[in-house]
Amino acid sequence: MGKLTSLLALLHNSESVKEIEQELTSRGYQYTVGKVGAMDLSKVVSAIETSAKSKGIVNANSYREVHALYHAILEAIQGVGRGTVQFGDILRTVGLTFSIVRGNIDFSGYGGEWISVCVYGTIGAPKKGFEHDALGFGFNHI
Amino acid sequence: MGKLTSLLALLHNSESVKEIEQELTSRGYQYTVGKVGAMDLSKVVSAIETSAKSKGIVNANSYREVHALYHAILEAIQGVGRGTVQFGDILRTVGLTFSIVRGNIDFSGYGGEWISVCVYGTIGAPKKGFEHDALGFGFNHI
Amino acid sequence: MGKLTSLLALLHNSESVKEIEQELTSRGYQYTVGKVGAMDLSKVVSAIETSAKSKGIVNANSYREVHALYHAILEAIQGVGRGTVQFGDILRTVGLTFSIVRGNIDFSGYGGEWISVCVYGTIGAPKKGFEHDALGFGFNHI
Amino acid sequence: MGKLTSLLALLHNSESVKEIEQELTSRGYQYTVGKVGAMDLSKVVSAIETSAKSKGIVNANSYREVHALYHAILEAIQGVGRGTVQFGDILRTVGLTFSIVRGNIDFSGYGGEWISVCVYGTIGAPKKGFEHDALGFGFNHI
Amino acid sequence: MGKLTSLLALLHNSESVKEIEQELTSRGYQYTVGKVGAMDLSKVVSAIETSAKSKGIVNANSYREVHALYHAILEAIQGVGRGTVQFGDILRTVGLTFSIVRGNIDFSGYGGEWISVCVYGTIGAPKKGFEHDALGFGFNHI
Amino acid sequence: MGKLTSLLALLHNSESVKEIEQELTSRGYQYTVGKVGAMDLSKVVSAIETSAKSKGIVNANSYREVHALYHAILEAIQGVGRGTVQFGDILRTVGLTFSIVRGNIDFSGYGGEWISVCVYGTIGAPKKGFEHDALGFGFNHI
Repeated sequence: MGKLTSLLALLHNSESVKEIEQELTSRGYQYTVGKVGAMDLSKVVSAIETSAKSKGIVNANSYREVHALYHAILEAIQGVGRGTVQFGDILRTVGLTFSIVRGNIDFSGYGGEWISVCVYGTIGAPKKGFEHDALGFGFNHI
Repeated sequence: MGKLTSLLALLHNSESVKEIEQELTSRGYQYTVGKVGAMDLSKVVSAIETSAKSKGIVNANSYREVHALYHAILEAIQGVGRGTVQFGDILRTVGLTFSIVRGNIDFSGYGGEWISVCVYGTIGAPKKGFEHDALGFGFNHI
Repeated sequence: MGKLTSLLALLHNSESVKEIEQELTSRGYQYTVGKVGAMDLSKVVSAIETSAKSKGIVNANSYREVHALYHAILEAIQGVGRGTVQFGDILRTVGLTFSIVRGNIDFSGYGGEWISVCVYGTIGAPKKGFEHDALGFGFNHI
Repeated sequence: MGKLTSLLALLHNSESVKEIEQELTSRGYQYTVGKVGAMDLSKVVSAIETSAKSKGIVNANSYREVHALYHAILEAIQGVGRGTVQFGDILRTVGLTFSIVRGNIDFSGYGGEWISVCVYGTIGAPKKGFEHDALGFGFNHI
Repeated sequence: MGKLTSLLALLHNSESVKEIEQELTSRGYQYTVGKVGAMDLSKVVSAIETSAKSKGIVNANSYREVHALYHAILEAIQGVGRGTVQFGDILRTVGLTFSIVRGNIDFSGYGGEWISVCVYGTIGAPKKGFEHDALGFGFNHI
Repeated sequence: MGKLTSLLALLHNSESVKEIEQELTSRGYQYTVGKVGAMDLSKVVSAIETSAKSKGIVNANSYREVHALYHAILEAIQGVGRGTVQFGDILRTVGLTFSIVRGNIDFSGYGGEWISVCVYGTIGAPKKGFEHDALGFGFNHI
């Protein structure tokens, strides 16, 4: 499930994303992909949260589900920040594609629903070409 | 380059990795893929460093190159640890596939060689099935 | 539930803990209290995890439950460490009482089971009297 | 002293707080309790600092005392943040009761005044019911 | 090179800085010194970055050089923050002298250019006298 | 006091250290300088602590003083680690000169004794020449 989530974000603009989407659908997973660009960390968190709610990946009226999603987002952002969970404060801007996948995993102790979030894009100075790739991934039970 | 590095680690065991490798070769990039399983953080750092040196991705006699690689590895591990750069100390074990890519990027201000490291695998308790996916990515000039 | 968990650890040796235990029981919560002293961070994590499993607070065969517990423990330890999740590495030893509570919370979006962990005790040099109080708390959906 | 500080914050609204206050008074400790709700981390730090100064717990004209208090506050906030010392930046809002206690501790190497800060309350999304308990504690010599 | 960079910042206002500058010049190093006072972390990063570019220490059109500088600045700021890379958010203001040195180091594996950044000054409350010394240092290949 | 502490560590092997020592003595400050090389973080903390006690900079029987020293050491080490308070775990070894200074500062709100710790040396791979300068500084009331 983590691999599919990551490939969904990484291959979003390529043709091979269709295979990923078919695999996700055949497993009965719910998923969505979106984009956000910001210097403001709270906008990134908010964009991913809002997308998951509006696409019905999580139930916006269930604190349990929102709590699970929130911690998966924070984990993914830590991969992007690599040591500091800050963007604009340290003059970094990000342009990110995010993917969110939710579904049942049924082997050994898993038994139940899990959620994973992948963010892939660029981080750098607010000047074209002065940025490089960044990637983050979070995973939680839901 | 970040995307190719990430796909190289994620698709390592699938057929589509050949396309990734062709693309890497056509761009003149050097790359390698390896695996490491450990509860001991220093073994993970060491395995990636040793692989990069023995495959000639970095020159083991150049401190500049080793320094660039080292910081890219640390960044990638921060994505895996998500907030704490510790494994065994907090009872986590990891089983990771890592990819290392080095090459010239020539547009806008880039001009020169860069190195990127992706680690993908599982993190969790030392008990089969009690682990989930983890992903980390680091990038540096070399 | 967080308040009861915290009071359970703080008042463990006093008479008033009976009231706390009655309140926990009347709400149908499961709980346990234990002690651990160590310079080794992994021993602290392990002691809390083992206690929760052996007392049946979490099902040791369910990765979902173990995952929820693990993250609650890590959160609690961050309160004890205050900035560094390390004990022996930076010459600190801890003597901790921990409480674990699990139960249903049913108002607004909660709907379902949650788990909370509180650790209370001393942290300091391995020399009697050269230590001070420390407290940490973690909370998760389960 | 740490236990009393923590109980003072946790039991603030209950009857048993009187016993805690009597114990604090009988030991000759100075203490205060206050509340702060904010998405803005600097408001939380500021509210606790201002309260300690206006209630005379620390002397606002002594940098030594203000420095001791400040670090105790930061430690307590790390327990609330559990890994990231950020609130609004990552879309978290807090509603906290804080307690500050200062006094002499006279056994073994202690000999002199110490200050402790406990914060207890809720952290979560800015939506009623979408928040959970949080607890933090800091301790310093003064 | 690190020692000279540090002495350049520390001795900026004293007579002995001339010796440091002579040594830097005789080694063919480029260097600059500047000052910045702010509660806003992004202003500190920005002031050091802008100074390095305008003095020609790094080429503002080369992302490689800007990337190397940026990470050296972040490392130096971590020494000032000591555990939290935040200033105004936690009510701290800084008054810093920064030095930036770039040059060739030619022994053993070094072979090539490196950049180092030192920041020295005060950190504390926004009130005269309620602040103390702070020091940070970063180093990178360029 | 911070500047003198830093210069004491940086200029330890040069002639100009005599001026620093004269200035320290004329102000009535106590100070010491030592060296430690290790991959093991706990050895670094221990070496600085032991030196301060054996030279009488702090009273080993006073927990207040040991507590003040300990936090100053941790702050200094955070400057050396720049984001991760780990050495051997992430394959870094350090060779450090440390200075410890204690004394009265009497202007505005200071009024009383303070302690500062500076560590200066090299950090890197356990291979000669594959290391670079590192610097850290901590400050506390005592």
